[in-house]
Amino acid sequence: MTAHKNPPIKRFIWPVASIMLSLILGERAAVAKPVTVADLLANSPAQDWRFPEPADTLYLDMPGGRVIIELAPRIAPLHVANITMLARAHYFDGLAVLRVQDNYVVQWADPAHQRPVPDGIHLVAAEFTADRSVGRQFEPLAERDVYATQVGFLDGFPAARDPRSGMVWLAHCYGMVGVGRDDPPESDGTEMYAVIGHAPRQLDRNVTLVGRVLKGIELLSSLPRGSGEMGFYLPSEPLAPIVSVRIAADLPTSERTPIEVLRTDSATFHSVLEQRRNRREAWFKFNPGHIDLCNVPLPVRTPGSGR
Amino acid sequence: MTAHKNPPIKRFIWPVASIMLSLILGERAAVAKPVTVADLLANSPAQDWRFPEPADTLYLDMPGGRVIIELAPRIAPLHVANITMLARAHYFDGLAVLRVQDNYVVQWADPAHQRPVPDGIHLVAAEFTADRSVGRQFEPLAERDVYATQVGFLDGFPAARDPRSGMVWLAHCYGMVGVGRDDPPESDGTEMYAVIGHAPRQLDRNVTLVGRVLKGIELLSSLPRGSGEMGFYLPSEPLAPIVSVRIAADLPTSERTPIEVLRTDSATFHSVLEQRRNRREAWFKFNPGHIDLCNVPLPVRTPGSGR
Repeated sequence: MTAHKNPPIKRFIWPVASIMLSLILGERAAVAKPVTVADLLANSPAQDWRFPEPADTLYLDMPGGRVIIELAPRIAPLHVANITMLARAHYFDGLAVLRVQDNYVVQWADPAHQRPVPDGIHLVAAEFTADRSVGRQFEPLAERDVYATQVGFLDGFPAARDPRSGMVWLAHCYGMVGVGRDDPPESDGTEMYAVIGHAPRQLDRNVTLVGRVLKGIELLSSLPRGSGEMGFYLPSEPLAPIVSVRIAADLPTSERTPIEVLRTDSATFHSVLEQRRNRREAWFKFNPGHIDLCNVPLPVRTPGSGR
Repeated sequence: MTAHKNPPIKRFIWPVASIMLSLILGERAAVAKPVTVADLLANSPAQDWRFPEPADTLYLDMPGGRVIIELAPRIAPLHVANITMLARAHYFDGLAVLRVQDNYVVQWADPAHQRPVPDGIHLVAAEFTADRSVGRQFEPLAERDVYATQVGFLDGFPAARDPRSGMVWLAHCYGMVGVGRDDPPESDGTEMYAVIGHAPRQLDRNVTLVGRVLKGIELLSSLPRGSGEMGFYLPSEPLAPIVSVRIAADLPTSERTPIEVLRTDSATFHSVLEQRRNRREAWFKFNPGHIDLCNVPLPVRTPGSGR
């Protein structure tokens, strides 16, 4: 071996590198089979899961089944109060999905603008952001982000934070639910939408997000797209009817859908995050090494079913 | 006014700030109405648009209509050659969409794995990346990205680039089309998919992308979701049939669908990008200031229709 092929610097580095390499390879070899997200969830302790508050759980019942939405009362208290009152007044029952814009949103409201808004429901101030007292529980994600200085999770929702002011806001990821508004920033909650496409993060801090679909988003995302402007259904196109909207706490237990959500502050969640950031499955030839906020899984399961 | 309320630094800064403010406000006032993307496209010169090559345009005809896919022969030449041969052999006709996974992909192939693969079709090497000779035309986007050092556009497709090696690759944005594969990196093009959810960028450099849906993605994205593992349809669920897959150039002109695509190297495209990055519409209360690669519109229109 000539000095040219094996210069001193490499002679020195090789033993160190060799030890490190065997440690890395050894660790990999110790993983008998790739740890998948399903494995992690199956082996998770019970305390890593939480039951969403029935008082903050909205059931949007469609002919095809139930869409379960977790509301965010700490982040959008005024809007959540309005939506709760609207649900209690059965305001949404018999209304419809009137807009399905591909790669964007599904929106439900009163198509005819004829139903009287119940007493006590008024336009409320925009809740685009929440202050540092709410943001104290913000759990940062290590990753950078295109739209915000810092992203992470807040009360189980994908969120962003301004580290200087401590202000926090929810992020428009797939399945997030918000309230439609006109030009003024106020809204009353009578018009709601869910994101069914690539995260329209330009809407962050421009419209009030009130929660997230925990289950049943496919009942909305697979609806026929509207052919009108911005995906509104044309008069010739059938609307997708809403059977009812209820707060889970208002229903007898027998009519509730049991559901658990993985805690974002749990060890299991951090393992899931790490698994998705650094893929160990043989199928992956290139390790992404990073994860976009809106690609982080927020697993739910039916209690007792193991999934 | 006391020195405390108006310290020297502010006395100096105010006149400068005042001039800047009036310039900004003046500029804003000069915009009679917000410049929307629709305005920009309506006023665009003809040379800012291009006709996709009929030889590189794939028609996926479904019972509900036509999905138009632009292929990427410079970036994935081996796979595009295979897919072109398969289309010419009418291989896909009568096959089906067999997988619709919510917020992920729609996949079409031979559900029964019974159709013989035409002569001349073999597994070809992965085309996860292309080298710097292909990447020379890469048009960078100013924005940062979670997954890549640099993102932008290549041959009209959303793409990423490693500035050190000059290597480029297509990015898994909504509507991008790729070829399914098993554990080995090779594939033959007989199994294809389109992205119908938040960009699964972890797949970048892990699977060969071959093009993008220019029109008709809603025919795929609104299909019922499969109830099986990974969104595969269960035997009890009807598959979504494929009528035929053809190369546009192989059809008489009367059976082709005229389409134009906005050039990503055009002034109009850069205005569209800037409009989406900095929102001037009155509805926007907070200016996002940035745009994610996969949120950049890549407009298409029907020639002569003005949209």
